[in-house]
Amino acid sequence: MPAPILVDLKFNPDTVERILKTAFLDRGSVNVADPETRSRDLSGLDYALLWKPDADLFSRAPNLKVIFSGGAGVDSFMNLPGLPDVPIVRFVDHSLTTRMSEWVVMQCLMHQRGQSEHDRLQRRREWGRDVAPEASELTVGVMGLGVLGQDAVKKLKIMGFNVIGWSRTAKQIDGIETFDAGGLDAFLSKTDILVGLLPLTPETTKFYNTALFSRLRQGGALQKPVFINAGRGRSQVEADIVSAIETGMLGGASLDVFEVEPLPSDSPLWDLPNVFITPHDAASSEENALFRHVERQIARFERGEPLQYVVDRGRGY
Amino acid sequence: MPAPILVDLKFNPDTVERILKTAFLDRGSVNVADPETRSRDLSGLDYALLWKPDADLFSRAPNLKVIFSGGAGVDSFMNLPGLPDVPIVRFVDHSLTTRMSEWVVMQCLMHQRGQSEHDRLQRRREWGRDVAPEASELTVGVMGLGVLGQDAVKKLKIMGFNVIGWSRTAKQIDGIETFDAGGLDAFLSKTDILVGLLPLTPETTKFYNTALFSRLRQGGALQKPVFINAGRGRSQVEADIVSAIETGMLGGASLDVFEVEPLPSDSPLWDLPNVFITPHDAASSEENALFRHVERQIARFERGEPLQYVVDRGRGY
Ligand SMILES: NC(=O)c1ccc[n+]([C@@H]2O[C@H](COP(=O)([O-])OP(=O)(O)OC[C@H]3O[C@@H](n4cnc5c(N)ncnc54)[C@H](OP(=O)(O)O)[C@@H]3O)[C@@H](O)[C@H]2O)c1
Ligand SMILES: NC(=O)c1ccc[n+]([C@@H]2O[C@H](COP(=O)([O-])OP(=O)(O)OC[C@H]3O[C@@H](n4cnc5c(N)ncnc54)[C@H](OP(=O)(O)O)[C@@H]3O)[C@@H](O)[C@H]2O)c1
Repeated sequence: MPAPILVDLKFNPDTVERILKTAFLDRGSVNVADPETRSRDLSGLDYALLWKPDADLFSRAPNLKVIFSGGAGVDSFMNLPGLPDVPIVRFVDHSLTTRMSEWVVMQCLMHQRGQSEHDRLQRRREWGRDVAPEASELTVGVMGLGVLGQDAVKKLKIMGFNVIGWSRTAKQIDGIETFDAGGLDAFLSKTDILVGLLPLTPETTKFYNTALFSRLRQGGALQKPVFINAGRGRSQVEADIVSAIETGMLGGASLDVFEVEPLPSDSPLWDLPNVFITPHDAASSEENALFRHVERQIARFERGEPLQYVVDRGRGY
Repeated sequence: MPAPILVDLKFNPDTVERILKTAFLDRGSVNVADPETRSRDLSGLDYALLWKPDADLFSRAPNLKVIFSGGAGVDSFMNLPGLPDVPIVRFVDHSLTTRMSEWVVMQCLMHQRGQSEHDRLQRRREWGRDVAPEASELTVGVMGLGVLGQDAVKKLKIMGFNVIGWSRTAKQIDGIETFDAGGLDAFLSKTDILVGLLPLTPETTKFYNTALFSRLRQGGALQKPVFINAGRGRSQVEADIVSAIETGMLGGASLDVFEVEPLPSDSPLWDLPNVFITPHDAASSEENALFRHVERQIARFERGEPLQYVVDRGRGY
């Protein structure tokens, strides 16, 4: 029998435990969250499925052949000591992608249609009537045109927004003007609603900061630009978001990810005007789908076929 | 020179006055809101553009040849005394349609993704983590598959919802299960989120009531069904909405239209849990687009071509 799969997923522990019971039936699993595994020798294990793993994980399991990420990003373990030089496979899944687009489209619509102001008037039992701009009067600029960004831009376009996109390398997407890394200024200067769907890498760390916000279009149909981020929190400088909202450089924000998660209860972000906070739940990995994906990739690997969704370690995503 | 157009639009009076200045340049207009027209003889006028007109409008202008509605619905004058037996043209416009779909998609997403609960937690500075169902786990049932309903169902489908539709006469729409008047029970029993896009007619008056809500699916992925209405307020029984929410027959609602508008400040709807109120602004008629549409229809009429978007007086829409 092949060695069991090493699992260290800092998701909801009960859910992981429950769903693991029916996964990897051909080889079983070793769940690091289970106290019984504390003293277990992990050196014979080949595969690990990880999300924010323990810092000593790679020293306890030094002979891994493939590492699977529990999410679309791999930043939760790229900087851990002892990361072996083996393929790293990220999680790509139709449902994850769809859910992210639900979140992105909903946040863009809430800003476009003035949901904060509607909510404020409703609480005051007041019948207001601001006429909001229509979607086609606004340009949504999406940063990151990978699996998630490409699905989001299509759906935003269908909802009527003018949509532009930016990524490291140039992309061709029907009906959408795209920019590569060098076109950053042109991209930002046309953007009314900035949507961040970038992975966390050294290049994207602290990327969403005052210097960047100051290059967004001022005076568009919403007057002030809006910042939306569902990539990773460490790509944003939260102090800069707070001051940009306070000074009016930004008119609002929607944030699903934070420098520190859970977002501390004393963060000023919680009650800034026109800022929507969601607790990193824009697109959660569904465990059943994740385990099926890992099973499929292991089967490919063991049949000698190439793994899919392998990360480029040089680029970091 | 042809007779001027009679205008009685109870929209924002300043906007109407301002935009009328550049409309109907070949014949001019008589704006009933203008005090100078109070004593004017209107019996020579051929065309009227109306939205909630004065009750004596038709007795003052008894020789109209065509009536244009300022909105997609015509209920605001169908019951006025003296309505002449002439063609009634409603307003159909790409931008109006798009805006309605923005509103419908946003409201469905806010219910699906638990926006009320996210908002409640944000106000308490609390990091919750309910996992909401994904769009594909919910069935949105759209009542009314006319111009607005057909655009909304397509966009809801693209966002991932399972979508079904209901209309008086059967429709064929790709990827969407449809029901005609006789299929009401089957339609309601599959619906988790009911979206009302029906015109107000004798048949649809007080249509959304306890008897109807009680036939919606209970125990779907949101547990309780949600009622969304952007058709007309007099199609809904607000006392029944309130009690359905209070007893748990409905889990939430989004309402853009009301029995009495503006919604009185003492209505219990304002602060029911998980109820979103918008002030009849889901899809406002944009005056420039409306005036161009009327100009086009008059030109057709005067060239002897058939008018478009003519209402069937027997059906009332
Ligand atoms: N909040 C949540 O619930 C949640 C859920 C899932 C994922 N995420 C985050 O979303 C991120 C994106 O996911 P994905 O599946 O779309 O990733 P992906 O397919 O790898 O796409 C990443 C995109 O970002 C671009 N990019 C990366 N570094 C860049 C740089 N320095 N400059 C410009 N563009 C750069 C890439 O450009 P190229 O196309 O040129 O390579 C690519 O278009 C994940 O890494 C994860 O952090 C968040
Ligand atoms: N809240 C807002 O801002 C706003 C803005 C614009 C419009 N509206 C409202 O939206 C309504 C719909 O607009 P529309 O342009 O989509 O109208 P439409 O093209 O005339 O479509 C009406 C739809 O309702 C169906 N219907 C009418 N009476 C019915 C009945 N008794 N039983 C079953 N189905 C019935 C029709 O069925 P058939 O297809 O079989 O005829 C048709 O599918 C307007 O009348 C207006 O009241 C609201």
